[in-house]
Amino acid sequence: MTQLSLSSLGERALIRRITSRLATSLLTPPWVLVGPGDDAAVLEPERGALDVLTTDAVVEGIHFDRAFVPLDAVGHRALAVNLSDLAAMGARPRAALLSLVLPEELDVKEVDRLLDGLLALARVHGVSVIGGNITRSPGPMVIDVTAIRSVRPRRVLLRSGARPGDDVYVTGSLGAAAVGLRMLQQTVALASPTVKAELPPSPSAPGSVESGFQVGREDRVAADLAIGPHECTARYLRPIPRVRAGLLLGRNRAASSCMDLSDGLADAVLQVAEASNVGMTIDAALLPIAAGVREWHASHSADAIDTALSGGDDYELLFTVRPSQRGRLRSVRRQLGELPITKIGVVTRGRSVRLSGDGPDRELPAGYEHFR
Amino acid sequence: MTQLSLSSLGERALIRRITSRLATSLLTPPWVLVGPGDDAAVLEPERGALDVLTTDAVVEGIHFDRAFVPLDAVGHRALAVNLSDLAAMGARPRAALLSLVLPEELDVKEVDRLLDGLLALARVHGVSVIGGNITRSPGPMVIDVTAIRSVRPRRVLLRSGARPGDDVYVTGSLGAAAVGLRMLQQTVALASPTVKAELPPSPSAPGSVESGFQVGREDRVAADLAIGPHECTARYLRPIPRVRAGLLLGRNRAASSCMDLSDGLADAVLQVAEASNVGMTIDAALLPIAAGVREWHASHSADAIDTALSGGDDYELLFTVRPSQRGRLRSVRRQLGELPITKIGVVTRGRSVRLSGDGPDRELPAGYEHFR
Repeated sequence: MTQLSLSSLGERALIRRITSRLATSLLTPPWVLVGPGDDAAVLEPERGALDVLTTDAVVEGIHFDRAFVPLDAVGHRALAVNLSDLAAMGARPRAALLSLVLPEELDVKEVDRLLDGLLALARVHGVSVIGGNITRSPGPMVIDVTAIRSVRPRRVLLRSGARPGDDVYVTGSLGAAAVGLRMLQQTVALASPTVKAELPPSPSAPGSVESGFQVGREDRVAADLAIGPHECTARYLRPIPRVRAGLLLGRNRAASSCMDLSDGLADAVLQVAEASNVGMTIDAALLPIAAGVREWHASHSADAIDTALSGGDDYELLFTVRPSQRGRLRSVRRQLGELPITKIGVVTRGRSVRLSGDGPDRELPAGYEHFR
Repeated sequence: MTQLSLSSLGERALIRRITSRLATSLLTPPWVLVGPGDDAAVLEPERGALDVLTTDAVVEGIHFDRAFVPLDAVGHRALAVNLSDLAAMGARPRAALLSLVLPEELDVKEVDRLLDGLLALARVHGVSVIGGNITRSPGPMVIDVTAIRSVRPRRVLLRSGARPGDDVYVTGSLGAAAVGLRMLQQTVALASPTVKAELPPSPSAPGSVESGFQVGREDRVAADLAIGPHECTARYLRPIPRVRAGLLLGRNRAASSCMDLSDGLADAVLQVAEASNVGMTIDAALLPIAAGVREWHASHSADAIDTALSGGDDYELLFTVRPSQRGRLRSVRRQLGELPITKIGVVTRGRSVRLSGDGPDRELPAGYEHFR
């Protein structure tokens, strides 16, 4: 197969290629009045709804390593992190803008692969990619996505609504993405002995990184707490934003606050507590940790609770529910189907954020911070 | 003065610093229902208006060189390029999202400076910075801005409306930013003899890069065609998006097509011609080139017409007007005040884009392409 770098293709030809790809492969609903190709995109807002907007970048060398993350997974991730932010606001995504900062030696086929992953996830959630920007990078690849959605005024989920006495819940399961990342890192370390292998060998590390690509749907999560070690890598490579869960929590007005877990559970708990001016006590014994995650930790003499608290890349939702609204939460559970929703703690007075159920009560450790 | 790098400050402290800065220094109009600090921002759309959205990144080493561009100018530029895109759609900017990808060794004061420049321009145009994202970069700094605006349905300016017989116009003047860039590059080359100086010395290169910062307003452009060589560096460092001109062209429905010149006049002419499926003939003798730009080219035996056609970073608007709508253009001129609007050519049948008035008629050379 011949290689064609971006520098030999040229910017205008690349824009034309991407624009025609977006135009043919995507839904172009009637409310997209001007799509990709002009100076800006033009949308017709939904009557009586509010605009919800979020932006998030994924950066090569920080959020992904091309040694073991294929570019379709990068495209998936770039959109997924934004859909997860919208889900945490109770908003179903509608449109996205894509800003690509790409090294000029990149092969055009790799750009196609990036779009494959992004557009496959966009299709699942009915998101129109309405425009964007491409520029050269003298270093790492950066993919910045801005996602937009309309939401009804009374259905917005904020971080700041938790009150003492509320119960604390989390969707899905914790720690699988962190285990998947370790496994992938290890595969690379084993393949190239010059790379320092910091981790003990994993009995279940995949032999090779899959480059085939399948989008995880929320309705295929039956086995969420039963997922095995092999599925952990898929969880890392193709995080599943909890779009439907966020939408149902907002629509049923079941949650008093909500946030997504992109930087780990501990980080989210601290942030919701701070924004709501409350404390929280999380019960370690209640954390939903998949069988495969427990297995991997047992075989590596590592602590699965630590990973569940501080591992990033779990795009689950943390939310709180007033005791009086438990009936609404039951409706959400019924409508959601098989996605587990687990009570993990309670909201308390004061500002202390604590962990119980795992030895003596203690302060919750903070999550991952980009600049530390 | 003590230095404090982002890695020693930490991400959460940096976000808090920026969020509080945005909250105190910015307009928070009533339609911003959720501003910075939650998972996403929430806006109340304007009734009966359309949403216009654009995204554009500025990348260290591609769009700016920190050796001669202070970070307040980088912040200014990151917002200006997006406001210019909105201006080309006839839309006044309303809100912006800011995605920062920053090296961890960066001093926190430099981030403050970046925000100084961005927020000063935001204030001039009444833009609320409603949210964003910060992440670490293993390489260059990337500042990605998404700008949002509402526009009335009949006032949207597209690239595709030009028809044979329309006149072609441009706002302001051409080439000043390109000359400013050369001067700044030269200052650096003179200061460090190891840097290869490709350009002859400029008699008017500034002794040092100013770090004081003043935002250019559109109503201070009286001297647009009279600007001297010294003012060229300011034009490069602080491009002035033609927000009011775009708004008036849309509001008066004077223009049949419009685009901004971020990648040079030749590029914009080619793109509007392609989108409208027409040709254009541009008269080189009519191009508005400031006195200082002509002077610099004369003293360097360089061709000012070439620079006016292909030099990037002129954030002027190119637009077309039907002969029957000249009265509307007169209204725009009256309302605009001193910003020059110059007729530079005509729209033709066929698809040929030509340059006349400068030797024999010839094909127009294409503009700057990022990946070539």
